[in-house]
Amino acid sequence: IEKNACAILSARPDDYPRAEHFALSNCPLPELSEGQIRVKNHYLSIDAAMRGWVSNERNYLEPVAIGDVMRSLAVGEVIASQHADFQIGEQVTGWFGWQQFANVEASQIIRKIHEQGHTQAPPLSSSLGVLGLNGITAYLALNNIGRPQAGETVLVSTAAGAVGSIVGQLAKLAGCRVLGLTGSDKKVKQCTEAFGYDAALNYKNHTNTQDLQQAIAQLAGDSSNGNGIDIFYDNTGGTIADAAFASLNMNARVIQCGTASIGNWDPLPEGPRKERYFITKRLLQQGFVIFDHLEKWPETVDKLCDLIRTQKLQYSEEIHHGLAQAPQALEQLYSGDNQGKSLVKVEHQD
Amino acid sequence: IEKNACAILSARPDDYPRAEHFALSNCPLPELSEGQIRVKNHYLSIDAAMRGWVSNERNYLEPVAIGDVMRSLAVGEVIASQHADFQIGEQVTGWFGWQQFANVEASQIIRKIHEQGHTQAPPLSSSLGVLGLNGITAYLALNNIGRPQAGETVLVSTAAGAVGSIVGQLAKLAGCRVLGLTGSDKKVKQCTEAFGYDAALNYKNHTNTQDLQQAIAQLAGDSSNGNGIDIFYDNTGGTIADAAFASLNMNARVIQCGTASIGNWDPLPEGPRKERYFITKRLLQQGFVIFDHLEKWPETVDKLCDLIRTQKLQYSEEIHHGLAQAPQALEQLYSGDNQGKSLVKVEHQD
Repeated sequence: IEKNACAILSARPDDYPRAEHFALSNCPLPELSEGQIRVKNHYLSIDAAMRGWVSNERNYLEPVAIGDVMRSLAVGEVIASQHADFQIGEQVTGWFGWQQFANVEASQIIRKIHEQGHTQAPPLSSSLGVLGLNGITAYLALNNIGRPQAGETVLVSTAAGAVGSIVGQLAKLAGCRVLGLTGSDKKVKQCTEAFGYDAALNYKNHTNTQDLQQAIAQLAGDSSNGNGIDIFYDNTGGTIADAAFASLNMNARVIQCGTASIGNWDPLPEGPRKERYFITKRLLQQGFVIFDHLEKWPETVDKLCDLIRTQKLQYSEEIHHGLAQAPQALEQLYSGDNQGKSLVKVEHQD
Repeated sequence: IEKNACAILSARPDDYPRAEHFALSNCPLPELSEGQIRVKNHYLSIDAAMRGWVSNERNYLEPVAIGDVMRSLAVGEVIASQHADFQIGEQVTGWFGWQQFANVEASQIIRKIHEQGHTQAPPLSSSLGVLGLNGITAYLALNNIGRPQAGETVLVSTAAGAVGSIVGQLAKLAGCRVLGLTGSDKKVKQCTEAFGYDAALNYKNHTNTQDLQQAIAQLAGDSSNGNGIDIFYDNTGGTIADAAFASLNMNARVIQCGTASIGNWDPLPEGPRKERYFITKRLLQQGFVIFDHLEKWPETVDKLCDLIRTQKLQYSEEIHHGLAQAPQALEQLYSGDNQGKSLVKVEHQD
């Protein structure tokens, strides 16, 4: 293929990636080699984790090289195949990058989309959000680390986000009281009206950690009597997390799923020490990265898909049109201005 | 009993308790009530955890009141009993306080000492250290949170201490490589010669966190290749822990068992943020307090006692003579000048 619009990483960000760190380009594809598959991308994923993928700091994946097509999950269809397991017309999701077409190895494909055959099938785009990285992260991290019990209280940061909004609903389905921290009054409303949170607050209305700590304590209840927070699903870290720690109950679990509030880790920023909380509250805190759990992806998709079909799980998507919008959509994600899972719909001539 | 020498808490310390925070006194005991037991104390325990027990800060036990006998584990014998389960002459350990005699409820007795009947029985004093709070803490925290696997690397802070010295040996018995952090060159030698550590270092020889971090990295190996630390058994927190975190392997477990290096938690001291380590290294960190696990106390004593009888486990004790020495012995503990489990032998007239 001679014409293949793509977005490459053109400069390495110091903290959060912005549109200026990417450039639009053309990435011609060679003939398929034996074992390769050619995918036509329909949707590209925009993820908070991309900050880590373009950083030179120690991380869970190799950093994207300057000049390379931006690493991204995507969903599309097979349009040519030199691999016996993949046939033309099959829909697949995997590591296809910010480009119109991709030549990939079988190892870059995460799964075939099979729920499209069902009645009331969720749209293809959902396989990047609620049935992809975000939903599966929410499901596995909440259940494997948090182990929610009916009657417990769960606090979620970035509560209306692509992961947080699923965590909140799953915790509610598990019989928990669910509280959210989010970054606008509009999202507070979305949390309680669309995603089933019992209550939520806009942390931007609380100007310092002390003030936010009091607001969370008021929202959650008295942790010294066990009426505080049992599970803190944390996507932000930083001062938001500092404020939440004071309201954790005995034997609370903290799921560290992201650090969205912290722009730069070199040098390590400082914050209040947590050691004593670990002892006095017997805290358990654990980090979660979905790529350690790929073997559970298919069965988890099935569970989430059932919840969607039976209308127990809501999700929202913000779809940007055209590959050229991807860098701007990513920048917007870090400003917190997006509503729901951020995606790019790839446009094709034909 | 009219004459019962005791040590009371006379002032509340701002940080570490010192001898001046206690006063020697006489605490006459009334007649036993129905259900009570009178114990004649032989040994009193001196524990780092006492700092928490005399602090007004939120903790896992109610603070000792000013004017009350200092809370302490002790071992002694029953000399009078109004309780059917306890007979005169039986040896018992429990919450008997810094005093010669104690009137106690059955709930204050943790267990009867039964290993004294065996041949090669460890001395009575050992039921406060290796067969008491310290040994049982070491055993349960290492195994329940750390889950050591043969071939893994375990780092222990306060490595020659009453808990650390047992952790090191248990980890070695589990087939691990064991590294220690301790506060004097003499204790480094004790770690490697008496307690079976593969290597140890004196953190006081490394003047700042950066320098200590390099020394630990050199001791442990390259964590980016998985040759670093798999389990960090942390009794200190603070800058010593900060330095160790940089050498943790993927999927490392951090056992927070103490915070000896931090004198005051109000306001919370600051330190480098750890959120990102949790994600990139999938860390699990958990706090441990032995009093949550009293039901496992007897079976754990039996296991540790077997290891002592078969000479697989060494322990050292520093015995102070006379109740009046207790406050000074505690002060000394925080200076790190003690060698092994610190105890007070109670003197009696008869």
